Amino acid sequence: MASQRPAVTISDIAAAAGVSAPTVSRVLNGRGDVAAATRERIEALLRDHGYRRRGGQQAAIGLLDLVFNDLDSPWAVELIRGVEDAAHAAGSGTVVSAIHRRASSTRQWLDNVRSRASDGAILVTTDLDPALHAELRELHVPAVVVDPAGVPSLDVPTIGATNWAGGLSATEHLIRLGHRRIGFVSGRAELWCSRARLDGYRAGLETAGLSVDPALIVPGEFDYESGFRAGERLCALPEPPTAVFAASDQMALGVYEALRRRGLRVPEDVSVVGFDDLPEARWSSPPLTTVRQPMAEMGKLAVRTVQRLLRGEEIDSPRVELATELVVRDSTAPAGR
Amino acid sequence: MASQRPAVTISDIAAAAGVSAPTVSRVLNGRGDVAAATRERIEALLRDHGYRRRGGQQAAIGLLDLVFNDLDSPWAVELIRGVEDAAHAAGSGTVVSAIHRRASSTRQWLDNVRSRASDGAILVTTDLDPALHAELRELHVPAVVVDPAGVPSLDVPTIGATNWAGGLSATEHLIRLGHRRIGFVSGRAELWCSRARLDGYRAGLETAGLSVDPALIVPGEFDYESGFRAGERLCALPEPPTAVFAASDQMALGVYEALRRRGLRVPEDVSVVGFDDLPEARWSSPPLTTVRQPMAEMGKLAVRTVQRLLRGEEIDSPRVELATELVVRDSTAPAGR
Repeated sequence: MASQRPAVTISDIAAAAGVSAPTVSRVLNGRGDVAAATRERIEALLRDHGYRRRGGQQAAIGLLDLVFNDLDSPWAVELIRGVEDAAHAAGSGTVVSAIHRRASSTRQWLDNVRSRASDGAILVTTDLDPALHAELRELHVPAVVVDPAGVPSLDVPTIGATNWAGGLSATEHLIRLGHRRIGFVSGRAELWCSRARLDGYRAGLETAGLSVDPALIVPGEFDYESGFRAGERLCALPEPPTAVFAASDQMALGVYEALRRRGLRVPEDVSVVGFDDLPEARWSSPPLTTVRQPMAEMGKLAVRTVQRLLRGEEIDSPRVELATELVVRDSTAPAGR
Repeated sequence: MASQRPAVTISDIAAAAGVSAPTVSRVLNGRGDVAAATRERIEALLRDHGYRRRGGQQAAIGLLDLVFNDLDSPWAVELIRGVEDAAHAAGSGTVVSAIHRRASSTRQWLDNVRSRASDGAILVTTDLDPALHAELRELHVPAVVVDPAGVPSLDVPTIGATNWAGGLSATEHLIRLGHRRIGFVSGRAELWCSRARLDGYRAGLETAGLSVDPALIVPGEFDYESGFRAGERLCALPEPPTAVFAASDQMALGVYEALRRRGLRVPEDVSVVGFDDLPEARWSSPPLTTVRQPMAEMGKLAVRTVQRLLRGEEIDSPRVELATELVVRDSTAPAGR
């Protein structure tokens, strides 16, 4: 991640390629109006000379890309809001794209970026496609990953949230209310955030001297339906929990519905805590106690990070986790009321 | 809205301005790399000759603009999804902006459009700023308004939904279930969609031979909090309703919470219907019966309309309303259970 002083200038590259400096700039800026053969020659020279862009050498395009796998991600709109806000303040437009994990959509997005250029790409993903990453590098478009769910694997700055600490704070809240049998609905097993939230839950129980009962840990997929099924399983236990911590708000709302169908009330009969703080957490009945992920702030930090990369500045750390925060509403109450 | 055959060509304008045809194209495409004085001269000639762009004469920029007043609009993400999907399929990026009804933000967005160019603007608003509209016209950026709430006032194609028919279908559904005292929580009084939904409610009652009781019509502001207050008012009536139709999903969820606090259950004690079909309508407990506004489809139609304008084609109608649809879930039940 460290920035290097450029050893060569745009003029050097232009002289070596036998083109004008503005043509090299156009290639650096990823613009489409350079003949393919010329572009390839210039890109090879840039690579061979280890050229790195630095501040002032390039005119900002005025566009930042924000790329989702799918726009039905529940926190998509919060992230868009944060990114748009920071980009707009910097005079930049925000291009929002969904690539649906499909090669054809990814290809089309990259072609669009190549023809219109971009100052940087913010990728919201837990599984960054190495080919996409390589092509962005070749286009000299700096990239940042916003990943509320996983852990970085590639050499790209990543912004996440403190999942383990969030899991701990939710569990401690329920323990302070006197709950001893606390169910946990986990997220998708292959994602690191699921493991981190589960470990936070376990740490909370063990710190309070409570044993971890495996029967109280039920798998989920982060979505409403899996939360509903997990809620039904927890209700059917011989000794059901008096509180449930679900690793996403949508699963928590599924637990609500499972409880309602059994005639159980939140929080009078069972307390429920979620994770995310989606807008619907405020509008559920009762309003949901949850662990807030600061999605808008994560989006703003992503914009600032990409801008620093664009200017060739160093960034603080390849992985930054912003703090989660417990938001107490009406879905949790003292045990045994 | 009718398309005119261009009386002059780009070459005519170029000759008159003493510039090359590509320079005229750059001005037509709204690009920033033309000197201000030259641009003004060319724009004046384009105006004076009544030049209108037509198909094939311009290279698409590969960018469409989608402009919101605020991104916390509850249906923002659905609209983004529809627009992005249709734009992406056409090889175009979607630039999402929020202008916050502030002149400075609008200015900044227009400056950004001016410097990077745009194939068209989809404006999500009920009160289109005439100055903004005029400037887009000057930039030759075709504009379409998506307006789920109001009625068009300016000479710009507008896409909405059938609010009156939606209000009628919700009310008829409750009447068929045997409800006779049906409360109505209205939306913001200054918006036409509020009036249309209210008129649909009245039409449903009157068609069924029921009288309209003014005490059952309570004002709201479309948001959760006003729905909660309206729910409390309806509960406090000497003869409270057995069903409530709220003119937005968020207000319906506020009604849920007012009922819950009184120990009343949905739908056993009171049936509730919303309007919008936001994602949270599916995840509420119980899942909400509501009138679906086809936001994603409205976004797709907006893209197709802007593309037709860009090609100089005629559009079908200056105002199109897409059909709303009643979605029956678990929040409505027969009266007097």
